[in-house]
Amino acid sequence: MDHQREDHDLAFLLRYENVAWYEDGAVRILDRRVYPIEERFVVCRTHEAVARAIADMVTQSAGPYYAAAHGMALAAWECRKSADPMAFLRDAAFRLSHARPTTASRMEAITGEALARASAAFDAGQDIAETLREYAVELMERRYRNIARCAGFLADRLPEHSVIMTQCFAETVIGMLLRTAAAQGKTVRMICPETRPFLQGARLTASVAVQQDCDVTVITDNMPAAVLSSGAVDLFTSAADVICMDGTIINKVGTLQIALCAGRFGVPYYVTGSPDRKKSGVCDVTIEYRDGSAVLDHLGRRATLPGVKGLYPAFDVTPGSLVSGVVTDRGIFLPTELSRYFHPEDGDFPSA
Amino acid sequence: MDHQREDHDLAFLLRYENVAWYEDGAVRILDRRVYPIEERFVVCRTHEAVARAIADMVTQSAGPYYAAAHGMALAAWECRKSADPMAFLRDAAFRLSHARPTTASRMEAITGEALARASAAFDAGQDIAETLREYAVELMERRYRNIARCAGFLADRLPEHSVIMTQCFAETVIGMLLRTAAAQGKTVRMICPETRPFLQGARLTASVAVQQDCDVTVITDNMPAAVLSSGAVDLFTSAADVICMDGTIINKVGTLQIALCAGRFGVPYYVTGSPDRKKSGVCDVTIEYRDGSAVLDHLGRRATLPGVKGLYPAFDVTPGSLVSGVVTDRGIFLPTELSRYFHPEDGDFPSA
Repeated sequence: MDHQREDHDLAFLLRYENVAWYEDGAVRILDRRVYPIEERFVVCRTHEAVARAIADMVTQSAGPYYAAAHGMALAAWECRKSADPMAFLRDAAFRLSHARPTTASRMEAITGEALARASAAFDAGQDIAETLREYAVELMERRYRNIARCAGFLADRLPEHSVIMTQCFAETVIGMLLRTAAAQGKTVRMICPETRPFLQGARLTASVAVQQDCDVTVITDNMPAAVLSSGAVDLFTSAADVICMDGTIINKVGTLQIALCAGRFGVPYYVTGSPDRKKSGVCDVTIEYRDGSAVLDHLGRRATLPGVKGLYPAFDVTPGSLVSGVVTDRGIFLPTELSRYFHPEDGDFPSA
Repeated sequence: MDHQREDHDLAFLLRYENVAWYEDGAVRILDRRVYPIEERFVVCRTHEAVARAIADMVTQSAGPYYAAAHGMALAAWECRKSADPMAFLRDAAFRLSHARPTTASRMEAITGEALARASAAFDAGQDIAETLREYAVELMERRYRNIARCAGFLADRLPEHSVIMTQCFAETVIGMLLRTAAAQGKTVRMICPETRPFLQGARLTASVAVQQDCDVTVITDNMPAAVLSSGAVDLFTSAADVICMDGTIINKVGTLQIALCAGRFGVPYYVTGSPDRKKSGVCDVTIEYRDGSAVLDHLGRRATLPGVKGLYPAFDVTPGSLVSGVVTDRGIFLPTELSRYFHPEDGDFPSA
């Protein structure tokens, strides 16, 4: 990879990635709750503030993992004069990993690796904060390479002219899919359900697509069945917050009903990501329920009478039987053969 | 029915019904696009203005039928000095009936009956506007009685403590269902998907329910599958814009995917209304596509970048195989036996 390509890719990353960055005692996180209408950064000066930003969904999708990695670098800076920095870091790792319950185990894989590197740096008398910052950057670069491979496998499945339906925000993978498809001479049109209550589909996915000159149409979340039943869609794709070893997909609420409708109307459903070795099935996952009042809110306005309650399950559970393929950096796997994803020499660290 | 009961019922009607009312050369229509946040009436001084209000969704669900009937009374007032009022009224009937394409045939049943009564009144030298005003009121009262029967049949299907999921706004039938269930000593909790883009579920259905002290929870339109899969819901119910003779249901977009999910998770789906003799199946129905920009709008604010398009199919098509029963004023019918709804002596006029 030459330097110009690398620069271009970094610009690409910064534009589409869930940006989180540690520097000089602060982590800056792009506020995805208001992007792209506003471009605002939340500046965290403690790792607790990073954990709070993750819990408050300042960053979403893959963003929390990078926020957590950079948060570990910040924690190392916070305890730079401490006699026992490792105890402080272990506490920080726990807080950051458990900011949101559903993804705690994948978070622990990242903060655990950070702890191991911090420990080695400590023993060697090196700068722990700098070691962990390098780790966070390495993590982003590794994921970026994995996503490029993943997007390539998915692009291969697209016909020459295709219409794909998305769900929520699969950020970099969608940006790279569009780029790869264009390089293959394929045209892709996108249908994005808006993804209430935070509108990730309308705000983020549709914006990524239109910025790449893709023909993109937003629909409300009650329309996927109507659109899928019309025969207009070639492929449904989403990322996943957790891919269990038995093929169960835990992803943004709404995925289950689109997957059910896609199955009914003969549209294949491809999930991007990698399986989580620590999650054999749904029983190993805690589904997060968020504050129900978010459901009653529409960009700051309320549409119903006092006394009406809101309910907000953040995720739903899609059985593997509704999944046509799990698109990983190592190829596309059937939901029933996910153990094949892991090489014998692999540890528990998620690679994508 | 004694007077007190009648008054009470009229108050009930005015509160929950899609109010449209002709008086002294104007039709006043409750603006359901802003209710209950604001209580505002659109005042129409020509039948064309009534047709425009119907097209603009000032009134919804059953409201357009009453608006059309009162619009016919207004048209009669408009042509009161004309030599050939019947020609004017035929033109008005066409305009009012075709304000929205999907419901034109049910509209024509109403405006056709209005034309017949107007013709008889004209021949007898009676006041046509007053004749048509009386017809519009009679139509509302007739429907009110039918809905009371319909709500009674549906209430009978509810267990002692039940949770029902709704779709969009079935107005009076939901209000009467809750009242009937309460009279039977049953408790009903409601889950209302919000129904984007106009939020009829959050604004109207949830408001009707909370005003009757019902425990009501709003969810976003991507959550029905998650809630249905949890086993918390006993029954899914919706009204219908058209019930075809073969059991196909045309209703607010989103009905199809909730019905699919209900079927998957073993939750019965009951549709309220009456079959349309003129619609044998989906081929006899025109699905309305509305201005897609409504999808990008959130109570006046926009959430995505310029260049992103919106798509707005107003209705979707649910096959009868997903319907457990069609709840009418004459009992509950299987979707495969709707011809039994019609008595041999019936004409084509919709009774509910």
